[in-house]
Amino acid sequence: MSPALILIDLQLAIDDVSWGQRNNLDAESNVCRLLQRWRSEQWPIFHIRHDSREPGSLYRPGQPLHAFKPETGPLPGETVLGKTTCSAFLSTDLADRVRGLPMVVAGVITNNSVESTVRSAGDLGFAVILAHDASFTFARRDWFGVERTADEVHAMSLSNLDGEYCRVLSTSEILCDVETYSPSSPSRP
Amino acid sequence: MSPALILIDLQLAIDDVSWGQRNNLDAESNVCRLLQRWRSEQWPIFHIRHDSREPGSLYRPGQPLHAFKPETGPLPGETVLGKTTCSAFLSTDLADRVRGLPMVVAGVITNNSVESTVRSAGDLGFAVILAHDASFTFARRDWFGVERTADEVHAMSLSNLDGEYCRVLSTSEILCDVETYSPSSPSRP
Repeated sequence: MSPALILIDLQLAIDDVSWGQRNNLDAESNVCRLLQRWRSEQWPIFHIRHDSREPGSLYRPGQPLHAFKPETGPLPGETVLGKTTCSAFLSTDLADRVRGLPMVVAGVITNNSVESTVRSAGDLGFAVILAHDASFTFARRDWFGVERTADEVHAMSLSNLDGEYCRVLSTSEILCDVETYSPSSPSRP
Repeated sequence: MSPALILIDLQLAIDDVSWGQRNNLDAESNVCRLLQRWRSEQWPIFHIRHDSREPGSLYRPGQPLHAFKPETGPLPGETVLGKTTCSAFLSTDLADRVRGLPMVVAGVITNNSVESTVRSAGDLGFAVILAHDASFTFARRDWFGVERTADEVHAMSLSNLDGEYCRVLSTSEILCDVETYSPSSPSRP
């Protein structure tokens, strides 16, 4: 059973300074480690590209920053799916393409499109692994106005997901154990 | 255009002590204020009931705590939809039932089924209002092991949702402005 690698929104737009302070500066190199393994095993890879419909978005098709980041982008022949929603499952045929496969998810940003994709995947019954150190996010204020660091935002998002919608693991843990993943759904408390 | 009221998982199970320390002790009375208005206007109300498939879950059908909390439960004739997923959209026909309507969401728990439902609704293009003081959650540890109060968990969840998937408002704000809500989708940055 070949696991699917689902990479979320790793486009040049995410490097724009307007996002603020990010975490996990090694995330791209960890994505590369995952890609290297997946390519050598010829397991399925899905590069999810955000095609924003918002006029001012850096992620809008036609904007120069809409392109994939070169270090983690698709090689010729690899599958690219454009999405207009945050969850990669609600505006693509990804569910049909990965039916029955366990999946590893990574990318940006943890608490938005990554989290929405993992929530959908878990709810749809997929066995999902989230690579916490191959994903990243940005500092932001919470609803009460408290400034939260990118690590705090990341940690709360992972906490909401782990055990409920997915298993959260490091890239090294994934690369060590990936052959043992089963397609069955995680236990949901 | 009648707005829909979507109440999430307000069952006796949520009062079990095993959940820990909750916030928003007035949430149920705020849900009652919403229900009173919706009933008097004869707007559509959807009581979403979690029907867990996990053997040990307090939310499993047949368990005594699976029943709705009496103070916020359905009156005879009101619509009840059972769900087996966290998002109310991924295991019911709710999307078809509320097609074209703006919606107000409240219930439990903020960062799990409420957040997954709001994320799905926003992604599906619905205009969504989340009633922050008619929802609640519980204290928990984040991924790094830092203890977070229920208010902190609640505030980070609201921050992830507001402006991206929904508008977050108080019950009083909703009751004041509800007639002006339009069914169009919120702007998504």
